Amino acid sequence: MELLTTNNVWMMICTALVFFMHTGFAFLEIGLTRQKNTINILFKNIFIITVGLLLYYILGFNLMYPGFEEGSAGFFEFAGFGIAPPENGMTPEYADGGYTWWTDFLFQGMFAATAATIVSGAVAERIKIGPFMIFTVIYVGLVYPLAGSWKWGGGFLDMRETPFYDFAGSTLVHSVGGWAALVAVWLLGSRIGKFKDGKPQAIPGHNIPLATAGVLILWLGWFGFNGGSVLSADPELTSLTLVTTCLAAAAGGVIAALVSFLRYKNLDLTMFLNGILGGLVGITAGADQMSPEDAIIIGAIAGALIVFAVSFIDRIKLDDPVGAIAVHLICGIWGTLAVGIFGALAGVDQLISQLIGILSYAAICVPSAFIIFFVMKKTVGIRVSEKEELEGLDGHEHGMSAYADFRMNEH
Amino acid sequence: MELLTTNNVWMMICTALVFFMHTGFAFLEIGLTRQKNTINILFKNIFIITVGLLLYYILGFNLMYPGFEEGSAGFFEFAGFGIAPPENGMTPEYADGGYTWWTDFLFQGMFAATAATIVSGAVAERIKIGPFMIFTVIYVGLVYPLAGSWKWGGGFLDMRETPFYDFAGSTLVHSVGGWAALVAVWLLGSRIGKFKDGKPQAIPGHNIPLATAGVLILWLGWFGFNGGSVLSADPELTSLTLVTTCLAAAAGGVIAALVSFLRYKNLDLTMFLNGILGGLVGITAGADQMSPEDAIIIGAIAGALIVFAVSFIDRIKLDDPVGAIAVHLICGIWGTLAVGIFGALAGVDQLISQLIGILSYAAICVPSAFIIFFVMKKTVGIRVSEKEELEGLDGHEHGMSAYADFRMNEH
Amino acid sequence: MELLTTNNVWMMICTALVFFMHTGFAFLEIGLTRQKNTINILFKNIFIITVGLLLYYILGFNLMYPGFEEGSAGFFEFAGFGIAPPENGMTPEYADGGYTWWTDFLFQGMFAATAATIVSGAVAERIKIGPFMIFTVIYVGLVYPLAGSWKWGGGFLDMRETPFYDFAGSTLVHSVGGWAALVAVWLLGSRIGKFKDGKPQAIPGHNIPLATAGVLILWLGWFGFNGGSVLSADPELTSLTLVTTCLAAAAGGVIAALVSFLRYKNLDLTMFLNGILGGLVGITAGADQMSPEDAIIIGAIAGALIVFAVSFIDRIKLDDPVGAIAVHLICGIWGTLAVGIFGALAGVDQLISQLIGILSYAAICVPSAFIIFFVMKKTVGIRVSEKEELEGLDGHEHGMSAYADFRMNEH
Repeated sequence: MELLTTNNVWMMICTALVFFMHTGFAFLEIGLTRQKNTINILFKNIFIITVGLLLYYILGFNLMYPGFEEGSAGFFEFAGFGIAPPENGMTPEYADGGYTWWTDFLFQGMFAATAATIVSGAVAERIKIGPFMIFTVIYVGLVYPLAGSWKWGGGFLDMRETPFYDFAGSTLVHSVGGWAALVAVWLLGSRIGKFKDGKPQAIPGHNIPLATAGVLILWLGWFGFNGGSVLSADPELTSLTLVTTCLAAAAGGVIAALVSFLRYKNLDLTMFLNGILGGLVGITAGADQMSPEDAIIIGAIAGALIVFAVSFIDRIKLDDPVGAIAVHLICGIWGTLAVGIFGALAGVDQLISQLIGILSYAAICVPSAFIIFFVMKKTVGIRVSEKEELEGLDGHEHGMSAYADFRMNEH
Repeated sequence: MELLTTNNVWMMICTALVFFMHTGFAFLEIGLTRQKNTINILFKNIFIITVGLLLYYILGFNLMYPGFEEGSAGFFEFAGFGIAPPENGMTPEYADGGYTWWTDFLFQGMFAATAATIVSGAVAERIKIGPFMIFTVIYVGLVYPLAGSWKWGGGFLDMRETPFYDFAGSTLVHSVGGWAALVAVWLLGSRIGKFKDGKPQAIPGHNIPLATAGVLILWLGWFGFNGGSVLSADPELTSLTLVTTCLAAAAGGVIAALVSFLRYKNLDLTMFLNGILGGLVGITAGADQMSPEDAIIIGAIAGALIVFAVSFIDRIKLDDPVGAIAVHLICGIWGTLAVGIFGALAGVDQLISQLIGILSYAAICVPSAFIIFFVMKKTVGIRVSEKEELEGLDGHEHGMSAYADFRMNEH
Repeated sequence: MELLTTNNVWMMICTALVFFMHTGFAFLEIGLTRQKNTINILFKNIFIITVGLLLYYILGFNLMYPGFEEGSAGFFEFAGFGIAPPENGMTPEYADGGYTWWTDFLFQGMFAATAATIVSGAVAERIKIGPFMIFTVIYVGLVYPLAGSWKWGGGFLDMRETPFYDFAGSTLVHSVGGWAALVAVWLLGSRIGKFKDGKPQAIPGHNIPLATAGVLILWLGWFGFNGGSVLSADPELTSLTLVTTCLAAAAGGVIAALVSFLRYKNLDLTMFLNGILGGLVGITAGADQMSPEDAIIIGAIAGALIVFAVSFIDRIKLDDPVGAIAVHLICGIWGTLAVGIFGALAGVDQLISQLIGILSYAAICVPSAFIIFFVMKKTVGIRVSEKEELEGLDGHEHGMSAYADFRMNEH
C-alpha cells in the first residue's frame, strides 16, 4: 500500500510534466514561425490537447490497451467505449502496484496528444484549420492508439521472440508524429517565399525567447515522459532514466551547436535547441537500458544528425518550419535503432527487431496520413489561399491578432 | 511514517503547483489587456502573492482554521497571531497522517492569495494601485479566511446535517474572488472606449501567447489545486480527481469553442481558453465525487455558460477585461450546484445545502467588497484620471514601460 | 525500501525544479536587458546548462564529492573521471536511504550550472561569447566543484569543530557566482551609455513580463533548491524549509518595494522582484534552521539590503544590468552570516565559522575569476567592439534577431 501510494504519486507528477510539454510545444512552434500565424498555431495546439484527451477517453485508451486475447494476431482489438474501471478494483493487475487505473488513463492520454502536436509545427503557416482538425481527430483518435497497441498494448510487436523495444516512444510517439509530418509537408507544399530559384530562404521565427523556453519546458517535461515510462517509482530505474535523458539532451545540444559552427561558422541558437530535442528523442527508446556513457554517445549522434537532416530536408525542398521531421522522425528512428546497438539489449536479433518495428510503424503511419490528407486535398482543400497566407492566418481564420499593440514589419 | 512521508511529498508538490498558478494568472491577465498597463498588473499580482502569504502567516491561517469550540455558532473564532505549531507535535491530529503543520500552512496560504488575484484581472487598466492594495490586505487578510472558516475550518456550513460541500473551492475560492470582482467592476465603471453608443467594443489583448500559456499553467496548477485538496496522496482519490479535473477542462474548452463558433462563426481562441478555465472552476467543488462522465458533463455545461455569461456581462455594461466574472463567479456557482445534481452526493438535501452555501458566501462577500470599495471611492477615489488611463498606468504609477525597445501602436 | 522510494521521488522532483530555474534565469536576464542582445544571452545560458552538466559528469561530481581520506587536509581530492557507481550498490552509504547514486549526481549537477548563470546576467550586453564560454568551462568544471568540496564534500570547512554551515548554498552557489560576477563586471567595464558625466543612466529592460515570470519560476525552483537540500523527504524538515523559503521571499520583496518607495517615491516592480530574489538567497544558508519568524526577518533584511546595494554598486560605477551582485553576492553573504545570528545554530563560534567560510570562498573565487578574465583580456580580449555593442550582439555573434517581425526603437 505504501509503495503503491509512492509509485502513484510519481506517476501523477510525471503525468503533470507530460501535460506541461504542450506549453513547450506551443512556445516552440510559435517562436519559430511568423507572428501573423501565432493565434492559428495556438488554437490548433489547444484543440489537440482538449480533443485528444476526450478522444482518448472515448475510445483511444481501450483501443491501445485492449488486453489482447491469447491466440489473437495482436493487431487490432477494442475493449469498448469509455474507461470503465477493471472489475477487481482500481489497481489493475498489470500495473503491478505501480499506479491506479485513473493514473494509467491520464498518463497515457497525455502522451496521445503529442503525436498530432508534432505535425502541427511542421504544417504551420499554410494549412487550413478545418482539415487539420479532422486529421487530428482521426490520427489521435484511431491511428495513434491502434499503432500503439502493437507494442505497448501487448500486440504482435511485443509478442515476438525478441520483442521490439521502445521504452518511452522514440517510435510509438515521435516517429508516429514524424511520419505524418513528412507526408503532410510533402502534400501541402512549401510556404510562399521559402524557395527562391530552388534555394531555401530563411524565414526567421518571431519570438526566440519563447522558442527557447519551449525547449527548456520540453526538456523538463521529458523528466515525466521518460521517468514515468518506468511505470513505477523504482528508485534505481527512474533515476538512471533521468540521468540518461539529461545527458543525451546536453550532448545532443552541444554537438549540434558544434557541428553547425564548424559547417556554417555561426553560433546558431536554433540548431543548439533542436540538437537538445534530437538528443531527447534519441534517448527515449532506450533511456532505461543505457549507461550514462551510452546516453552521451546516442545524444551526440542525434545532435549531429539534426544538422545534416535539417539541411537535407531543405535540399529536397520540403518546408518544415520548426524542424519537426529532423527532430522527431530522424532522431526517433535513430533512437530506436540505438537500442539494438548500445546498452543492455544490444545485439543483432534486437537490431532486426527494432528495424521491423520501425518499418511496421512506417507501414501504418505513412498510408494513414497520406489517405487522410490526400482525400481532403482533393475535396475541401488543405491549403489556405495565397492572400490568406500572405496576410496571415490569424486575421482570416480567427479574426484577431496575437500582438495587437505592437507595430510589425511587413513580410 | 512511510505513508506520512509520501502524503506530505504529494502535498508539498501540490503546494508548489498552486504557487505556480500565480504565474498563470499573471500571464493571463496581462495577455488579455493592453501593453500600457502591464507593469501595473504585474505589480499588483506580485503584491498579492507576497503580502497575501505574510498576512496568512500573521492571522489568516488561525482565522480560517481556528478549531471551533464545541457549541460555538461556527461563525467566527481566532486562534491567535502567527503559526505556532500544535503542542503534540508537527503532525496535527486532524491531518490524519496526511501532511505536517508547515505543509498545511503553506498549501492553504497559496490558496489565499488566489481570491484577490481573480479581482486583479477584472479591475485592470483603470483602478488606482493604492486602493487596490488596501482592498487586497482586507480581503485576503480578513474576508477570505473568515468566510473560509465557515466550511473548511469546520464552521456552521460544515456543521449542518447535510453539510455544504466544496471540495477545492468553487465557492470558497473562486466565487469569493468572483463576487468581489463583480462589485469592483460595477463601482469602477468601464474603461474609456469600451462602450460606444451603448455597444461593447473589443479591446484586444496585447500578448495572446502569454495568455494561452497562462491558461495552460493554470490547468497545470489545478493538478495541485484539486489534487492537493484530497489532503493526502490516497492513490484512488487523487488520481480520480486529476482525471475529472482534466476531462472537465477539456470538455469546457471544446464546448465553449463550439458554441462560440455556432453563434459567432469564428474560431475564437480566447473563448476556447476561458472555456477551459470555466470547466476547471466548475469541477472544483466536486472533483473527488464525480465519475469521468459526470466531469465531462459538468465541464461542458460550464463551457457553454462561459459563452453566454461573457455576452450577458457585456450586455449589462459591466467591463471585465479578462472574463473573470464569467469564469470564477458564474462557473463557481454552477460547479457548487453541480455537487447536488451529479456524483456521489447528488440529492435534494445536498442541492439545498449547496444553495445555502452559495448564498452565505454572497452574503459576506458582496457587502464586504462593497464597503471596502465604496468607502475608498467616496474618499481617496478608486479610479485613475482620464489622462492616466489613456496614457497607461505603467508610466504614471510605476515610471516604466513593459516593452521599452518595441514600437507600439497608439490606442 | 518504501522510504527510499519516497525520498528518491522527492529528490528527483527537486532536481526537476532546480533544472527549471534555468528557464527562470534566462527569462530574468533577457527581460532586464535590451532586445538586441537576447539571442546572445539565451545562447550563453543554454551553453551553461548543457556543457555544465557534461562537465559535472566528466569531472565535477568526483571533484566535489571525492570522499576525503582520513587525515587529509580536506582541500583537494579527485575520485576519478566519470560517475562509476559505488561498489556496494546504487544507494550510497552516505545517502542514508535518501536517494540513489544517479539522483545524487543529477541533483548536484543541476546546482553546478547555476554559478555560471549568475555571472551571465552581470556581464550581459558587452562580453565576447568565446571568452565567456572558456570562463564557463573552467569555473563550472573546476572552481565550483573544488570550492564545493570544502564544505559539502566533507572538506576542511566541514571538518572544523564548529563546522561552517551552508544548507543549500548562499555561499557555495550564490556567492561563488557573485564573486565572479563582481570581478568580471569590474574587468569588463560598463556598457556604453551607462554612465554619463559620472551619473548612472537607466537602461530599461525590454521584456518585463518575462523578467517577472523569471522571478516566479526561480521562486518555484527554490522549492527544489532548498527543499531538496534536506537530502531526503523528511516531512518536518522539508516542509519547514519550504515555509521559511517562501516567507523569506515574500518579506524580501515587500521590504524592498517599501524601502524603494520611501526612498524614490516610486512603485518599482524591478526592485520588488530583486527583493524576492534577495530574500530567497538570504534564507538559503539556513532554511532548515530557522523558525518562520526568523525567516521573515532574514528575508526582510535581505530586501532592504538589495535597495542599498543596487544604488551602492551604481555609485562605485560597476555596471551590473540585472542586479546579480546585489542579489547573489551581498545577500549570499548576509544569509551565510545570518546562520550565526538567528535560528538553531546561532552563536559566536558559529558566526566566526561563517565568516571564515565566506572569506575562504572569496579567497578562491576572486583570484580564480580574476586570472581567467584577466589573461583573456590581455590576450584575446573579453569585450566586443563598440560597433558590435551599439548594434547588438545578436546580429554580430549569431546572425539572427530575437524578434524578427517586430519594429524596434533605436537605442
